[in-house]
Amino acid sequence: MQLPGMSFFILIDLVLVGSLKAGPIEKGLTYDSYHPRFQPTPLDTLAENELNINYWLNNAQNTAQKLFDHEENKRVAKNVIMFLGDGMSISTVAMARVYAGGEEKQLAFSNFLNIGMAKTYCVNYQVPDSACTATAYLAGVKANYETIGVNAQVPSNDCTAELDKSTHTHSIAKWAIDAGKDAGLVTTTRVTHASPAGLYAHTSNRDRENDAEVIKDGCDPETVEDIAKQLVHGEVGKQLKVILGGGRREFLHNDPDPETGESGKRKDNRNLIQEWLDLADEGENRTYVWNKQDLLSVNVDTTDQLLGLFEPSHCVYNLDRVHKTLTQEPTLTEMVDKATDVLSKNPKGFFLFVEGGRIDHGHHDNWAKYALDETVEFSKAIEFARVKYSEEDTLIVVSSDHSHSVSYGGYANRGGDIFGVAGMGNDQLPYMTVSYANGLGYYDHVDAEKGTRRNVSHLDTTKDDFRFPATVPVKSETHAGEDVAVYASGPWAHLFTGTYEQNMIPHMMAYAACIGDGLKACT
Amino acid sequence: MQLPGMSFFILIDLVLVGSLKAGPIEKGLTYDSYHPRFQPTPLDTLAENELNINYWLNNAQNTAQKLFDHEENKRVAKNVIMFLGDGMSISTVAMARVYAGGEEKQLAFSNFLNIGMAKTYCVNYQVPDSACTATAYLAGVKANYETIGVNAQVPSNDCTAELDKSTHTHSIAKWAIDAGKDAGLVTTTRVTHASPAGLYAHTSNRDRENDAEVIKDGCDPETVEDIAKQLVHGEVGKQLKVILGGGRREFLHNDPDPETGESGKRKDNRNLIQEWLDLADEGENRTYVWNKQDLLSVNVDTTDQLLGLFEPSHCVYNLDRVHKTLTQEPTLTEMVDKATDVLSKNPKGFFLFVEGGRIDHGHHDNWAKYALDETVEFSKAIEFARVKYSEEDTLIVVSSDHSHSVSYGGYANRGGDIFGVAGMGNDQLPYMTVSYANGLGYYDHVDAEKGTRRNVSHLDTTKDDFRFPATVPVKSETHAGEDVAVYASGPWAHLFTGTYEQNMIPHMMAYAACIGDGLKACT
Repeated sequence: MQLPGMSFFILIDLVLVGSLKAGPIEKGLTYDSYHPRFQPTPLDTLAENELNINYWLNNAQNTAQKLFDHEENKRVAKNVIMFLGDGMSISTVAMARVYAGGEEKQLAFSNFLNIGMAKTYCVNYQVPDSACTATAYLAGVKANYETIGVNAQVPSNDCTAELDKSTHTHSIAKWAIDAGKDAGLVTTTRVTHASPAGLYAHTSNRDRENDAEVIKDGCDPETVEDIAKQLVHGEVGKQLKVILGGGRREFLHNDPDPETGESGKRKDNRNLIQEWLDLADEGENRTYVWNKQDLLSVNVDTTDQLLGLFEPSHCVYNLDRVHKTLTQEPTLTEMVDKATDVLSKNPKGFFLFVEGGRIDHGHHDNWAKYALDETVEFSKAIEFARVKYSEEDTLIVVSSDHSHSVSYGGYANRGGDIFGVAGMGNDQLPYMTVSYANGLGYYDHVDAEKGTRRNVSHLDTTKDDFRFPATVPVKSETHAGEDVAVYASGPWAHLFTGTYEQNMIPHMMAYAACIGDGLKACT
Repeated sequence: MQLPGMSFFILIDLVLVGSLKAGPIEKGLTYDSYHPRFQPTPLDTLAENELNINYWLNNAQNTAQKLFDHEENKRVAKNVIMFLGDGMSISTVAMARVYAGGEEKQLAFSNFLNIGMAKTYCVNYQVPDSACTATAYLAGVKANYETIGVNAQVPSNDCTAELDKSTHTHSIAKWAIDAGKDAGLVTTTRVTHASPAGLYAHTSNRDRENDAEVIKDGCDPETVEDIAKQLVHGEVGKQLKVILGGGRREFLHNDPDPETGESGKRKDNRNLIQEWLDLADEGENRTYVWNKQDLLSVNVDTTDQLLGLFEPSHCVYNLDRVHKTLTQEPTLTEMVDKATDVLSKNPKGFFLFVEGGRIDHGHHDNWAKYALDETVEFSKAIEFARVKYSEEDTLIVVSSDHSHSVSYGGYANRGGDIFGVAGMGNDQLPYMTVSYANGLGYYDHVDAEKGTRRNVSHLDTTKDDFRFPATVPVKSETHAGEDVAVYASGPWAHLFTGTYEQNMIPHMMAYAACIGDGLKACT
């Protein structure tokens, strides 16, 4: 039985594998004339227009005209939406295009006319994590690995140093709130996870999402506040008008989870969801939802603050939502739609942080299909927001916190399956387009007894959770250290070009929106 | 015995390896709180200023000020220099920074205020080669793998289709010459190699650098001209005022090479170097040089056209030039200096193509050190040119033709040796920061008998030609398919931002310089 839409890809793979040669070995290693020559995509199956010179010349001239006509937008940004694709490397973006339709396609954000590159290292590591980078792109300060909302004087996991408020950094969410705007967050991870925590938390260890983790670290939970508590009661956290994502378990102790019935991770007998509801001032309406239906039914007109926690831990992968028919789970776009509806009630505008957080998780597991599908979902949410809000008054910035060790290797045919075979190794075994420097995929692709690679033709590569090959066995595939892209559209988007330190990002957003203590477009 | 400058790196490696743990395995695979926690760089060895919030805030504000103050340069570009780092992926640029001094450093071109991203696929391949990409970034048309200067109606290695002149594309060198400017090329590869050939050749097979290759392909050398012949006698080739690089053997048959004494690759009894000299018109001075001393001695005032061929094949790697004391070999910067001196004699300005061509070769051999060192040499040449020519009238565009399957994995300490160890695998063996999806490094790092990885602690990782690990054994590591960066400085540099097809690049350069048939800044 054929799966709909798969026959084309399978055909291409078979053609490709059938025609591969290992390369002209006899030519030596001098690069005199060595380059692999596999069977190309047949001429008569190529897009006919691409065969013509004028197609390319005219396309280039039309794009050029668009660029020449584009005028710098120097208005003040009423609204700023930052979209963060966690672990969304340049290679991830390029591969997601092919997954979404073809090499020539653009994701919503790569259509933005302005782009820059951000240097991601943190103060004590060459290759960063999502904690120190969140401090950079949200609070404008580089810091140490695993720390959030504190400067580099605070080492990782130090219960004392983090209590000194002079070490605390302040995020653009605070800058926006201080300027009278509303602020909120949407994420596909737990709302207490490292990236969103960059908006509101100060901690030397990103793991402390609940009080049990604080205790495990040997800290006193009376003085060292866990991240969930900071979200509900902290200076910035309690002022966030919208909080949508996963992570119910970080808010609960004995109260059962509405979907699983299980108790939460807390040990302090508190129910922070209830505490969040109880914080409502006289006449203020706080709404809590935990499933898609209730989210879509939220009456924006009568809702002042909205908390939505859709899973005990992270939100489900979009592929699981679809393939496992998880009808209670909202899409990222649905969360963004409701979040912006609530935030748009403030006539002074808003700052919204939106994370496509599970691109990173897919990669960490060498599950490239999950990672690319999450990237496409992320793109859909950006496209939705860009259509919903005018470029005239709404700045949208799209970036990533760090890269991953994934590579998009050669040389598959044009239009080939991104999850397919790209060529043939010297061992006469096919190799795949996608591979990782490390990860659990190692075990699926190396036959330890024989000391050879396994033949992927004998593996089921079509599964959502197929692990792609990795050079080194590690439990969790690592991040990578090269720059990530920064895509911008709207007021002052032209500022975001060039190569800069990642901590520049909030300063430029603040400039465009006229908030914060630094330079401003309106002064 | 310690090598000067190495002790710091070795120390860091030892500290790192000694403190690695394989990660908290007990925490499962749910990403509940899993992220590796190695020993960080000690607080007291970090740069003190980086510990302070104000350091980062002030740096960001200063950079922001520079961006805000930067005004679009809408002058006409008198001169255009395109620098092409062959195979210079985003990860290569980031790693070269560390090699050159530290994560916080910038290469000359990543300091440019404008950046864009180019999509590199060619018409029949997802991941391209240097031939079809040269047609894109020099002639503005995408084409087929292995073909140069012809459209996609010409399949690879077709002796007949390429003869139809309606399939021929024309490069920006021709556009510049037609507008009265001078044009030239400088490369560290053979001057007949795929990238520079994009300026002047039309061929369905990049391998045909001499007539012997034409014959080998079953083509008639009377009708199908090899690339060297096109360089000397072709419409564009014969008009190039400067040609500097390697590749003497492609020009010679029986005449001995001045350095090796060996005969060339040709079979037609021709000496194309002599033919090139003999093409001088009455009163015109053509100068040929083959070593550094003669290059530096060239009298620019009396030289109308300059040919320099410094090696039988490619120019030597810079590391070899230094470590093997090859005093006859010029640096890329020296070639650029002399080339621009000659070209600058034209009051109408010039177009110069400069290729750092052996970044690609280093990667193909999994020789990361060569690749990064060539990247730094490339950067030096760009810095030199940017200082030599004013931003007011000279547009410099820096890009790459395609990426490589190299990755810059986590998680080394800040300031760690880019060629060192980054972490520990589940197999209790260290893994390196640099690794490749494929290549010959496989054989050095996999113990085929035991079926395990080799311990890099037992390998000499300090050699220039140390091969870094690869997942799949292939003879030549493959390119990769993600976007490459486009860095621009000078007139109309602001046009180069955003994500676009690679064939946009010459159209935008032509716009800035008011050349070619398309849109122009001056009309």
